[in-house]
Formats: sequence, structure tokens, C-alpha cells
Amino acid sequence: MRLRNKPWAKDKIEEYPQYAVPNPELNKGKWDEVFGNNNPLHIEVGTGKGRFITEMAKAHPDINYMGIELYDSVIVAALDRLIEAELPNVKLLNVNAAELEKYFAKNDVDRVYLNFSDPWPKTRHEKRRLTYKDFLKSYENILVDGGEIHFKTDNQGLFEYSLMSFSEYGLLLKFLSLDLHKSDFEGNIMTEYEQKFSEKGNRIYRCEVKYTNDSKGQS
Amino acid sequence: MRLRNKPWAKDKIEEYPQYAVPNPELNKGKWDEVFGNNNPLHIEVGTGKGRFITEMAKAHPDINYMGIELYDSVIVAALDRLIEAELPNVKLLNVNAAELEKYFAKNDVDRVYLNFSDPWPKTRHEKRRLTYKDFLKSYENILVDGGEIHFKTDNQGLFEYSLMSFSEYGLLLKFLSLDLHKSDFEGNIMTEYEQKFSEKGNRIYRCEVKYTNDSKGQS
Ligand SMILES: C[S@@+](CC[C@H](N)C(=O)[O-])C[C@H]1O[C@@H](n2cnc3c(N)ncnc32)[C@H](O)[C@@H]1O
Ligand SMILES: C[S@@+](CC[C@H](N)C(=O)[O-])C[C@H]1O[C@@H](n2cnc3c(N)ncnc32)[C@H](O)[C@@H]1O
Repeated sequence: MRLRNKPWAKDKIEEYPQYAVPNPELNKGKWDEVFGNNNPLHIEVGTGKGRFITEMAKAHPDINYMGIELYDSVIVAALDRLIEAELPNVKLLNVNAAELEKYFAKNDVDRVYLNFSDPWPKTRHEKRRLTYKDFLKSYENILVDGGEIHFKTDNQGLFEYSLMSFSEYGLLLKFLSLDLHKSDFEGNIMTEYEQKFSEKGNRIYRCEVKYTNDSKGQS
Repeated sequence: MRLRNKPWAKDKIEEYPQYAVPNPELNKGKWDEVFGNNNPLHIEVGTGKGRFITEMAKAHPDINYMGIELYDSVIVAALDRLIEAELPNVKLLNVNAAELEKYFAKNDVDRVYLNFSDPWPKTRHEKRRLTYKDFLKSYENILVDGGEIHFKTDNQGLFEYSLMSFSEYGLLLKFLSLDLHKSDFEGNIMTEYEQKFSEKGNRIYRCEVKYTNDSKGQS
């Protein structure tokens, strides 16, 4: 999701260090200090315009949230939401998810959310999918033991691929819905993409997986 | 699928021992002798009227097939197909799938097919689902190492449950389609239920899972 180039985006992001964390590598291993408490930290990778992370932060004041987004032209929309909402428990990181381990140490993160991640349908782009094994490894390296990934998407191919990738990695499938909006799942907070694609009539798929001692990265 | 009671069914089954194996417990560990060759054995649990198993046997003459069905009133329909088709590589067992280990020894079976198994949607009936962990254990006890379960159904709830049950058991998810009839999967052979429910517009779900050294039953 690359929006029109916004030359002023970088400047605006720098104006709000309380929401868009500058020099995040300096906080590796000590995000508690940034939030000023020991609450669990849940990150959304590929947060887009930030609806999900902002609404989650409102609904769960005892959890810290962080939205990670590559493009400054996109993250400014999330920043506007945070400026408006004035919440103490949510921040943004304008970085590449391929480098999570630069910003987070093992045990820094309690849960990873992936929402409507780019599908990269071509086989030759498999490595770019946020559920490719290298990404699963990097999430493992920043999560607590027993940490979880919560994933939703309307993209059938990406969901099929991801369930196989999770299984191959040894993750435990704890929750699965093949039609979230017709299920009895409670407390769902829609993302921007979810609003758009469910209005079109697309099914929303959702799962929760958990790292265990069987996971491939551990031993 | 209990059809009208057919008092003559038992008699008819006994008339065709070459298709509906009598006293199957006597063949435990030596099904090769019954088929007269060492080809792999694939069984369908809950075979119903036998369309799948018969067409599979036609398409794959180098594999032995066995359809397992509890009700004699149902299995007679499968028997009629076999009498008509006159195939050497397919047989029927009129037994309860809860007692597979009475009829098959470890390594007797190379693959288990589950097609449109009864969904048993109520939680209190979970143990009756053919993908409940006790059934997964009994399949493991008759399959070769690395043996597979190939499962399809139109029942969303059963499919969701089964993928979680497979994961919990430590099975590897090798193949997944969330809309089989719109996928590029080749060589699909429709079952009776599949014909009926796909005509109604229901999606067909399909997966393949594999027992590995990570499976819970092994060690
Ligand atoms: C399809 S959008 C979904 C946005 C939002 N999660 C939603 O559901 O509405 C995917 C987002 O992930 C971001 N993204 C993709 N790859 C990324 C990466 N490697 N690091 C950070 N963000 C990334 C994209 O820029 C885009 O904003
Ligand atoms: C819903 S039907 C599906 C039949 C067929 N596989 C198809 O797809 O058309 C399920 C079948 O499984 C059989 N069945 C259920 N539980 C069984 C058990 N414990 N042992 C053997 N057969 C069973 C039922 O009698 C029924 O014929």
C-alpha cells in the first residue's frame, strides 16, 4: 500500500516522537521504559493506516501496542489517528519488518498481529510473505516463549500458504475460523482492509498459532 | 447415513466374499495375501455408497483400496458398484472404524481417506468425529511411518476442528485447499456427498496431513 508520495511525511513523523518512536534500536530490550510500565507488548506488523492498533489500544488499556509500517506515506495516517486518540499505550515504528531483531530483543514481545499482509502470490516472491519461515524465525527471536501470532486476511491463497508454513515450522494451531464475520468470535476489531474487503462480500479467514517446544527454531 | 433397513443386506454381503471381506480379523498383518500383491493399501473410512473408492481403484490399478463402512444397508450400494466394475484392487469391510486395530496391524496401511465424515457438531459428541485424537492414534497404529490422511468435506466446522486436532496431534499439513473445485488440484474424484453438496454451491475443503516424528503418538 504505497500512497501518493508525501514529501512532508518524514517531517511530520519527527514532530511526534511520543507516538512515532525515533531511533527505536536504542530501546531494544527496554520497551518497558518507553511505555513506563511492564504490561505485555503486542505488535502489528504491516499496520497500514492504524485503525486496528488504535482501536485495540482503546479496548485494552492494560496492553501496550506497537504498529510497524514500512512506508512513511502510510504511517502518517496512523499517526493522525494517534494524535486524535491521545492514548498512552500505543506507538508506531516506521521500519522494515525484515529487521525486527534490530529493534526487539528476545522476550520483548508477547504477541504478533498480522492483518491482511501483502499476499505476494507469485512463488518466486514467497520469501517476502510475512508468514515465510524466515519471518516466523524472526518473530520467535523477539517473542516470549509460548508467544502467539494472530493472523487474519481475506486472501485465500495466502491463508492456505500460511497454515502450511505454520505447520511446517511446528507452530500449534489454537484457533481457526474460515468465515470470521459469520462466526461467534467476540471482540473482533476490523482493520481498514477488513472493512473494505468484507463489504465486497469476501470471507475473512483468521487463526491463532503458538510457538511451543516443538517449533522448529527451538530445540 | 442410515438408509431404510434392508433385511436382505447381510445375506447379499455374504454372497460376495471376494468384494466384502468376511472375518477380516483373520487378515490382520497379511492383507498382501488377500490382494495377491505387495501394492500400497489405501483405506477410506466411512465409505458410504462407494463411488470414491471404486473410481480411485479404476484410476490407480497399482494401489489396493479398501472401503470401510459401518452400515450394511449402506455398504450394499458400494457392493453393487464393485460387482459391476469387477476390479481386482478394491474391497469392502463392513465394520466399525472405532475398531480398526482389530483388522489392521502397524504398517498394513499406507494412506487413510476421510471423505465427508459425519460432522457431529455438538461439543459433547467430539469423540465421535473421525478426526478426534483417539482416531488419529488408531490410524497411526495401522499406518506406515510417514503415512498420510487425506481429508475432504464441505462442513466448515468439522474442517476447522480437524485442522486444529491434526496440529495438536503434531501432524504436518502438506496440502490445503479452501475451495477445491476452484483450485488447480488435478485428479479429484468426487464422492456421492461431494457431488450433492457442491451442486448446492457449497465449498469443498481438502487437506493432506502426514505423520512425522513430531506426531504426539510416536516418540
Ligand atoms: C495490505 S496492507 C494492510 C494494512 C492493515 N494491516 C489493514 O489490514 O488494513 C499491508 C501493509 O503492510 C505494510 N508492509 C508490507 N511489508 C512490510 C514490511 N516488510 N515492513 C513493514 N511494513 C510492511 C505495507 O506497507 C502495507 O501498509
Ligand atoms: C456422511 S457419509 C459420507 C459417505 C462418503 N464418504 C461420501 O463422501 O459420499 C459418512 C459415512 O460414514 C459412515 N460411518 C460413520 N461412522 C462410522 C464408523 N465408526 N465406522 C464405519 N463407518 C462409519 C456412515 O455410515 C456414512 O456412510
